[in-house]
Amino acid sequence: MLEQFYLQELVNNALKEDLPWGDLTTNTLISDNFTSKVEIRFRSKGIIAGLDIAKLVFKTIDPAIQFNTVAKDGVEVDKGTVIAAIEGKTASILKAERVALNFLQQLSGIATKTATYVNAAHKGNANTKVVDTRKTIAGMRNLHKYAILMGGGNNHRHCLSDAILIKDNHLAGLLEHNVNLTDALLQLRKKVSHTTFIQMEVDRIDQIQPGLDANIDGFLLDNMSLEDLKKAVQFINKKAITEASGGVTLESITSIAACGVDIISVGALTNSIQALDIGLDYLD
Amino acid sequence: MLEQFYLQELVNNALKEDLPWGDLTTNTLISDNFTSKVEIRFRSKGIIAGLDIAKLVFKTIDPAIQFNTVAKDGVEVDKGTVIAAIEGKTASILKAERVALNFLQQLSGIATKTATYVNAAHKGNANTKVVDTRKTIAGMRNLHKYAILMGGGNNHRHCLSDAILIKDNHLAGLLEHNVNLTDALLQLRKKVSHTTFIQMEVDRIDQIQPGLDANIDGFLLDNMSLEDLKKAVQFINKKAITEASGGVTLESITSIAACGVDIISVGALTNSIQALDIGLDYLD
Amino acid sequence: MLEQFYLQELVNNALKEDLPWGDLTTNTLISDNFTSKVEIRFRSKGIIAGLDIAKLVFKTIDPAIQFNTVAKDGVEVDKGTVIAAIEGKTASILKAERVALNFLQQLSGIATKTATYVNAAHKGNANTKVVDTRKTIAGMRNLHKYAILMGGGNNHRHCLSDAILIKDNHLAGLLEHNVNLTDALLQLRKKVSHTTFIQMEVDRIDQIQPGLDANIDGFLLDNMSLEDLKKAVQFINKKAITEASGGVTLESITSIAACGVDIISVGALTNSIQALDIGLDYLD
Amino acid sequence: MLEQFYLQELVNNALKEDLPWGDLTTNTLISDNFTSKVEIRFRSKGIIAGLDIAKLVFKTIDPAIQFNTVAKDGVEVDKGTVIAAIEGKTASILKAERVALNFLQQLSGIATKTATYVNAAHKGNANTKVVDTRKTIAGMRNLHKYAILMGGGNNHRHCLSDAILIKDNHLAGLLEHNVNLTDALLQLRKKVSHTTFIQMEVDRIDQIQPGLDANIDGFLLDNMSLEDLKKAVQFINKKAITEASGGVTLESITSIAACGVDIISVGALTNSIQALDIGLDYLD
Amino acid sequence: MLEQFYLQELVNNALKEDLPWGDLTTNTLISDNFTSKVEIRFRSKGIIAGLDIAKLVFKTIDPAIQFNTVAKDGVEVDKGTVIAAIEGKTASILKAERVALNFLQQLSGIATKTATYVNAAHKGNANTKVVDTRKTIAGMRNLHKYAILMGGGNNHRHCLSDAILIKDNHLAGLLEHNVNLTDALLQLRKKVSHTTFIQMEVDRIDQIQPGLDANIDGFLLDNMSLEDLKKAVQFINKKAITEASGGVTLESITSIAACGVDIISVGALTNSIQALDIGLDYLD
Amino acid sequence: MLEQFYLQELVNNALKEDLPWGDLTTNTLISDNFTSKVEIRFRSKGIIAGLDIAKLVFKTIDPAIQFNTVAKDGVEVDKGTVIAAIEGKTASILKAERVALNFLQQLSGIATKTATYVNAAHKGNANTKVVDTRKTIAGMRNLHKYAILMGGGNNHRHCLSDAILIKDNHLAGLLEHNVNLTDALLQLRKKVSHTTFIQMEVDRIDQIQPGLDANIDGFLLDNMSLEDLKKAVQFINKKAITEASGGVTLESITSIAACGVDIISVGALTNSIQALDIGLDYLD
Repeated sequence: MLEQFYLQELVNNALKEDLPWGDLTTNTLISDNFTSKVEIRFRSKGIIAGLDIAKLVFKTIDPAIQFNTVAKDGVEVDKGTVIAAIEGKTASILKAERVALNFLQQLSGIATKTATYVNAAHKGNANTKVVDTRKTIAGMRNLHKYAILMGGGNNHRHCLSDAILIKDNHLAGLLEHNVNLTDALLQLRKKVSHTTFIQMEVDRIDQIQPGLDANIDGFLLDNMSLEDLKKAVQFINKKAITEASGGVTLESITSIAACGVDIISVGALTNSIQALDIGLDYLD
Repeated sequence: MLEQFYLQELVNNALKEDLPWGDLTTNTLISDNFTSKVEIRFRSKGIIAGLDIAKLVFKTIDPAIQFNTVAKDGVEVDKGTVIAAIEGKTASILKAERVALNFLQQLSGIATKTATYVNAAHKGNANTKVVDTRKTIAGMRNLHKYAILMGGGNNHRHCLSDAILIKDNHLAGLLEHNVNLTDALLQLRKKVSHTTFIQMEVDRIDQIQPGLDANIDGFLLDNMSLEDLKKAVQFINKKAITEASGGVTLESITSIAACGVDIISVGALTNSIQALDIGLDYLD
Repeated sequence: MLEQFYLQELVNNALKEDLPWGDLTTNTLISDNFTSKVEIRFRSKGIIAGLDIAKLVFKTIDPAIQFNTVAKDGVEVDKGTVIAAIEGKTASILKAERVALNFLQQLSGIATKTATYVNAAHKGNANTKVVDTRKTIAGMRNLHKYAILMGGGNNHRHCLSDAILIKDNHLAGLLEHNVNLTDALLQLRKKVSHTTFIQMEVDRIDQIQPGLDANIDGFLLDNMSLEDLKKAVQFINKKAITEASGGVTLESITSIAACGVDIISVGALTNSIQALDIGLDYLD
Repeated sequence: MLEQFYLQELVNNALKEDLPWGDLTTNTLISDNFTSKVEIRFRSKGIIAGLDIAKLVFKTIDPAIQFNTVAKDGVEVDKGTVIAAIEGKTASILKAERVALNFLQQLSGIATKTATYVNAAHKGNANTKVVDTRKTIAGMRNLHKYAILMGGGNNHRHCLSDAILIKDNHLAGLLEHNVNLTDALLQLRKKVSHTTFIQMEVDRIDQIQPGLDANIDGFLLDNMSLEDLKKAVQFINKKAITEASGGVTLESITSIAACGVDIISVGALTNSIQALDIGLDYLD
Repeated sequence: MLEQFYLQELVNNALKEDLPWGDLTTNTLISDNFTSKVEIRFRSKGIIAGLDIAKLVFKTIDPAIQFNTVAKDGVEVDKGTVIAAIEGKTASILKAERVALNFLQQLSGIATKTATYVNAAHKGNANTKVVDTRKTIAGMRNLHKYAILMGGGNNHRHCLSDAILIKDNHLAGLLEHNVNLTDALLQLRKKVSHTTFIQMEVDRIDQIQPGLDANIDGFLLDNMSLEDLKKAVQFINKKAITEASGGVTLESITSIAACGVDIISVGALTNSIQALDIGLDYLD
Repeated sequence: MLEQFYLQELVNNALKEDLPWGDLTTNTLISDNFTSKVEIRFRSKGIIAGLDIAKLVFKTIDPAIQFNTVAKDGVEVDKGTVIAAIEGKTASILKAERVALNFLQQLSGIATKTATYVNAAHKGNANTKVVDTRKTIAGMRNLHKYAILMGGGNNHRHCLSDAILIKDNHLAGLLEHNVNLTDALLQLRKKVSHTTFIQMEVDRIDQIQPGLDANIDGFLLDNMSLEDLKKAVQFINKKAITEASGGVTLESITSIAACGVDIISVGALTNSIQALDIGLDYLD
């Protein structure tokens, strides 16, 4: 899903960041004639994400390197599983190692974490989708959103350009200037593309009716109590999509899902990242 | 320390990622005549990092925005502290908000976490420095290394180009090809710049002598027991810098520091990132 | 709607294309002390689009230039109307002139043409929206889609990433490989974001039911006769959005709109571009 | 004539514009195992231009795609002619289709239109060259100028940097500041490269003599009547190149050529673009 | 002549090269409150070139810096002359110093050297122009060609795209494949723009006639003896421009000019660069 | 040592500079069917540097070109030595020739010059290293520093980011603001990475003690007399690295080395560049 021409740019930039004028250690210490065989191994259980970009790092340093994957993104593997076997110049392997692992550990970390949230949500409601937010690290949105998918999650809108999400601060801005909300929502529908999803944040049930009147597509039910969430879902009654959000944790997500919301968005999936332990080992 | 011409490029890329063809919601909903006042507030205790780049995000969207900082990077503030007051077009504030907060939350998160490790280390040894690693997110190395400094940490080498660090995989490569290590180290010194620091990873005390013989500048004592760490520090006896590394945690860092090492490197400072809770609130 | 940081990049590239190593004529012929006053004038009736980017061209060549707009994008003006008055160094004006006019003529041309289609469509049905397609010139999509809005049109999806449009060639691909369409459509809904609009191309009425069964959001009624269009609209019966497409002309669009479709997409709005006659005149 | 390293950058940017974060439809609907055979076919008579860049679009999406051209740029083909046969992953074909066709339709449209102007001009004078102007779309100048050549036209100067063209607004600037034109022209010759062509716009015959006195290389005879054009050609008498310009149409170009001018420049070749109808069809 | 939007890119890249992650010395040693006054002074006699770009380096590091020029590019100044006075943050001055001086020393070096060649040539023939070649350092062509002008030289064609120069290796290629030269030259004129200068290299007088027959614009008389140069000039007899080239030195250029050639091209102007001694001094 | 992904960017930019819209001469004169064999030959004795980048220029223009190197960077060859044999399309060879030679001549020129300085220095002291400075041409630092190594020299710090060098202007800044130097140096050590080399410029022997007190790593002995240099070396007595600098010439370097300094830095290696005479010849 991540096109090669896009990954290549990311990889080039990552390599320029880590080897702006070469790898001093390898260039001076390791003979160009040395070759090695190494493996990439999961050192803890988790879901693979990022094999393509890891491979591209090695291939960019040295097109002659053999990089054979023995697993696929999106698959959960046990601690100790080898996911790729690499063979080629020792120097090339040493230069690519850290940049490749950084991508792989980070993306697999996101995918693995996502899966735990998805599993917990599905205990409450098998149809609830767990989605990401725009709380990503600059330059990483495509990769992070991809890792969410690999972990069994779904994506929310990609960015400010592809869907409408009227948040509390938009509503505050309208209120502050005495704009009639229902009128504004009706106007909105006329202005935007027929393909544009319109969603509005609410934190009280009495805020829902104006949205229903304007026939919007979804509600973001923000920081509501479980009781209110259930009421909101009933009130909306399938006339629009319901999304719960706001400080969702692994502990709270099952109960939230059980309220019947269609979607739960979890900022923690990308704004708190835990690299998965994945290593590159030399074969004797 | 982060020059403006460098930050501007990061900010432009982050905005292109979040508004590739404009902010659909704001463009269609918020009148260009509306103005607002907002504040950026720490919602948990922590160390500020990233105010300059957050400000630049707003200024890039709209040079006419007033962004007044009432605190500085590197300062620890309590929950509830306002660190910046912003005034200008409502639309501009809404467009810049998320990208600016993403930088600020992430960098302040790194700085705050670093401080906890530094404090813990200093309980064991007031002179031990806590440093980062190359386990950073692609494109973020300059920012992340800056946040480490703001948290009271120090930086390790920046990348593969500015210092020599002979790691286990380099040694494996040399061993595999029957290279004499002491000879290789002596050659190395002749080849590199007089400004280049040469450090070698060891995981056993008997590996130290060849490095001392070659007069290298530092040792990376990897995954050693506390007992071995102490022995290594004594054995090296100030003839080179000593760095402990390998799975260092907040729990273990005090005892490691107490072994007398000069430096402790902590991958977790950047490979596991927890955004700090910082919000943007509308003033009534 | 077009953010400055994005326009600046377009303008810089356009100037690099036209003055890769300076303006030979102006640099050698026109003294740096000369100043002039000029006006930008519509030489035919039309709708303005591109004033901001035209201004930015002048300001990029010379920040000291005065560029005063006396009209706004989206406004229709008569032949002879002055839309901007410019004053500053003669040399700077001469360097910026062509690049600025190229943007302005092209975008105003698109806006003006769009308005004629919108007017014609509204004669058939006041609620039908006229929208663009992905048949744009590489690098110009943001600008061209903006010009469509200035002409009173609406935007279709922006690109392949922000909405699903299952076209004849997708259907051919599925058919060729014996995929069950309804199943595929149901799976699709589960995979994509809740914000993603799903639309399917059909060219016969009997192809509609599977889409309705899968509860898709819209139908692209491609190259249908007026009679079939009407039947399709009735058959779909507001359960999804209806879009007519395929060789729509200024002559045919009124009748097509009269069939009751919600949307008419017109490739000709951007794949055949007629620059509007707009000139820059020296004042005596 | 368009070097690969240059086309690659254009293609990458076009793909980033159309698939900024992937092709949602294809990624979710079309199995990675599907393969297809398709053809690119001219749906109207015209001159081919852009086959190399169209091929590069497919190859950039997927290097494994087979793209076999059965014709060449610059050749006129009949309606229905297949110009390329493509075979490979269905998903890759679907992703590349629109971007490739956009380039091909646009460039072939320019080439085809150019040919009609060239033919019409040659009816008036077989030696008159039809040339382009700087009225191109930003970022497209190299491609558009290439398409002009494919249509049998010639190129005028490429940009402001490679030749001197003293236009009415330069003359107005000089006049306004009381500069002696002949002196200015003589100075000019000394300042510029010996390789630089110097051309001056005139709209009256009495303006020609100063240019002849200064031994300039060419005259742009702007918006002259046919009668004046003939007189100007006689007056200049082969001592400099003669170019007619100003609102040249397909109707007027034959008579203009018959006046004996060496060159006719036609802004409409690139500032009004009509995509040629070229399609991509699935083979059963 | 060097537009700001172009210089800015060069300056940003130069600063990224010299401060990829900040100025370690200044950031850690010099307080942000310190201010200083400094001067840029010529430490040897020479011609100034590069003041604008030097100023832009300082302004890019810190827009608040005062940079007052007290001289202009193209002016010859004596040893000891102050050409700019700078005042502002000490830290900003220290960061910008080297990059700014590198540009200024290099460009002034080229201008100064050019002037010596121009003076020597004019002793032989006051009308002969001294021009540069394509033997420039990658990325520096615009700046180096500008410096040539500042030194009183002229520019040859800018690059492979803006003029035709048929060199010995082109002729070898044609000869090798039995192409008739006169025919090829006549064809050439038809294909290229009327603004394109056509020049051909010859190293024997008998090679000139085919060029004259084809009415080309200039001859490159390569590595000819002074005697042959004179004969060639007489033979061509003002029917085309004459350029002498090939190992021209400061010693030989006067005699070469005296042969009556219009142009002498000197590779050494840019392929051997001697930085001029220019310093930045602190004022007490 | 220069990674391919980095060289590719340099080569693309150099080609865009020399062929911004193609090679006019070759495109119009040389048939695409012609092939040729050529050789790159040293026309004077010297050290090779830049073969990889020269090869990449040809391969970027045309991947089908055969470029066979018969020598290696860093090797000294006699006048007349062929270092590469090239075979392929005549047109491709002609397009790549100048850009490739520019890199090769310039880098070999630097390497060859460096060797003369190294040889002269070693006559005075076989252990003294000759190093470069930051006086490089913008955009060329990686290449120029690489050429220094090929000539047997060593590199100083790469840029402002990878080592500390307290120069006279820093000291002037501190002095001007009454900062205690020893205190400042001790603070510095605490702030920077343990991998950071700290060096200080001195021009009198009495300035050395504060540096020794602060345990800095090296001294830059600037513009000292030979007598003072010897005294300084004795005074420092191996407690820090000693570097001589300041107007070092080929004449003075032997005596300077004989003073016992560890390092001599020579600005002239890169701020005055003499292209080596290397040609591309057609084989009959």
